[in-house]
Amino acid sequence: MSAVADLAVLDLLAELDDIGRDERGGWTRPGFGPEALALERWFAARASGIGLDVSRDRNGNLWAWWGAAGSDAVVTGSHLDSVPGGGRLDGPLGVVSALVAVQRLRASGFHPAKPVAVAVFAEEEGSRFGVACLGSRLLTGAVEPAVVLPAGFVGLDAMGRDDDALARIGCFVELHVEQGRGLVDLDAPVGLAAVILAHGRWRMTVTGRGDHAGTTRMVDRADPVVAAARVVLAVEQAALAVDGARATVGRVEAVPGGTNVIASRVELSLDVRAEEGATVRALVSRIEEAAALEAARNGCGFGIEQGSWSDRVVFDVALRERLDAALGGVPALPTGAGHDAGILAAHVPTAMLFVRNPTGVSHAPEEDASEADLDAGAAALELALRTLAA
Amino acid sequence: MSAVADLAVLDLLAELDDIGRDERGGWTRPGFGPEALALERWFAARASGIGLDVSRDRNGNLWAWWGAAGSDAVVTGSHLDSVPGGGRLDGPLGVVSALVAVQRLRASGFHPAKPVAVAVFAEEEGSRFGVACLGSRLLTGAVEPAVVLPAGFVGLDAMGRDDDALARIGCFVELHVEQGRGLVDLDAPVGLAAVILAHGRWRMTVTGRGDHAGTTRMVDRADPVVAAARVVLAVEQAALAVDGARATVGRVEAVPGGTNVIASRVELSLDVRAEEGATVRALVSRIEEAAALEAARNGCGFGIEQGSWSDRVVFDVALRERLDAALGGVPALPTGAGHDAGILAAHVPTAMLFVRNPTGVSHAPEEDASEADLDAGAAALELALRTLAA
Repeated sequence: MSAVADLAVLDLLAELDDIGRDERGGWTRPGFGPEALALERWFAARASGIGLDVSRDRNGNLWAWWGAAGSDAVVTGSHLDSVPGGGRLDGPLGVVSALVAVQRLRASGFHPAKPVAVAVFAEEEGSRFGVACLGSRLLTGAVEPAVVLPAGFVGLDAMGRDDDALARIGCFVELHVEQGRGLVDLDAPVGLAAVILAHGRWRMTVTGRGDHAGTTRMVDRADPVVAAARVVLAVEQAALAVDGARATVGRVEAVPGGTNVIASRVELSLDVRAEEGATVRALVSRIEEAAALEAARNGCGFGIEQGSWSDRVVFDVALRERLDAALGGVPALPTGAGHDAGILAAHVPTAMLFVRNPTGVSHAPEEDASEADLDAGAAALELALRTLAA
Repeated sequence: MSAVADLAVLDLLAELDDIGRDERGGWTRPGFGPEALALERWFAARASGIGLDVSRDRNGNLWAWWGAAGSDAVVTGSHLDSVPGGGRLDGPLGVVSALVAVQRLRASGFHPAKPVAVAVFAEEEGSRFGVACLGSRLLTGAVEPAVVLPAGFVGLDAMGRDDDALARIGCFVELHVEQGRGLVDLDAPVGLAAVILAHGRWRMTVTGRGDHAGTTRMVDRADPVVAAARVVLAVEQAALAVDGARATVGRVEAVPGGTNVIASRVELSLDVRAEEGATVRALVSRIEEAAALEAARNGCGFGIEQGSWSDRVVFDVALRERLDAALGGVPALPTGAGHDAGILAAHVPTAMLFVRNPTGVSHAPEEDASEADLDAGAAALELALRTLAA
């Protein structure tokens, strides 16, 4: 590793490039997996290298403290896990920028009046256990460990709401690459989050009749793959009819999944987001109604059950205005993505800094930011911490 | 195991029930896997138990000879592997019935004038390496081993057309559960196959743009899951328009496959069958044209490439008429399913016996036959062997 004084966002990101690279494209780093563990080891080494004290809380989140852990702390950070085939910035950018910002503050001789910490939240993407922001949800008690994690999961007994950890957080600022083209359109390198859309996940099942692909006449079939295709189109149609809403089927599994077999059922994921929670719920009701009718056209059944749910988050207005003033006025943006900052927002003042993404693409290898914007992000976070910890 | 004299179809089938049972339903026994190996071990023990000499040829097929292996042999048998989540009869019924028939012939004091053998062909379903009837195709040189099997596959160097094995086969009779309701409609327990439909497999790919499910507006997407849904419906529509044709999408994979990720591409299998090969090819051309247009409606690309191909098979008429006479007149049926008998038909006279399936369902756990029909099938096969080996 390079000397402490050399820390730069792009260099630190480059150190992570070989961890969890997916031959199908991008990076695959599920929470609690070997890739996430390797990233956490890297974080612990880097954080120790700039003089922070690193520890793991009982929900699997990492904390790197500048000085002694204490109350009313200014906390920054993000997550290191990724979706399957995700980009390199969501969420390592927030962790890397936090290390850079803290190191620069220390190197500049700044003496914080409040404790400062960098947090790495576990399993933010929910790609292993199906619940997004798992680490921050466990910490805040938003989910019960035994509901999400399998029996026998290491450390399960100790998991759950952590009032001590929560009580130390005075405020939380998460830096993240923007996952849309808001800052591109506004020609600004950095912005602040205003709200997170309401967001739910569901599991849909289309059930048909498994049969032989060669011997079963087309008219005799109850093929759930064809019915699931109708369901997917119904989801798109329903979402297009609601202004600002998004509905996505990202996972599809035909069971049993043989080339010469008419499947017996198809499992599909459904991710729905909109400005208001009520809009999401109404949209899912319409999807359920339409999907059942569509599946029936091929003699198939349809079922849906809810996974996770996140109400709309409005970030702390006073904190946002304070940071906006410190940064000399930057755009405030809504976002459709969930974040640990959104979970913590129910308990402590939180804010998010976004860094411009020229492609607007996220959760895919095309996710990007220029070197200048990466530096601008780290500088903004440094200024934010300097303001809040003074 | 029970005494030799007790062999009955239902008892032998029951001995296989625990091998490869799939918790999602049915049985999953891919060729060259541990389940197939366990079934082969069972076969070798059972065949030895009734006095047959068991050996494996260099393409992975098993041969159990009654007496010395020799030319102009009367061969029967089928396969032991299954599709994912398949039924219990396709193809163990043909192997089990062959053992029962041979054991009864021996017990009856019958002395065959020709060599008799029971064959178990490897990887008939193509569920591991994607080529159906792999063992019989390798044996007859219909495929080159290196094209199908991965480099380093054990025994690969020795595989390929086996003229010695082929020269020994005087005729081949395969018993199989019917994979449709032809015999139900005709109220007959047993029938003979007349033709196998022409049959091809293709791989389809729909390419879109991976992105974040929460931040990407519906109108900004190039979502390959939605485009693939349109493709699946186009396949169904095209097949419905061609009398007697069947087209099936049985496997679907969205890549990368995350709940909160718009996929970047979708891989789909396509299985198409019709009475004439030209009909299959014309139908696939129509599918290709329609699918490309449908995928483009969501800004996605479409590609298709051929996997396996099997021309229509007309079973040997003289052999069929001889068996029909021996059995006192039974229905002759077409079938949409490929079989090792169809591959061997290009080289030696072959015939197939079908056993009534009350559900008509195959490649699924509902595949069935009554005990009386199972016995009728074994009795028919015994009579066929007695006739042909006399």
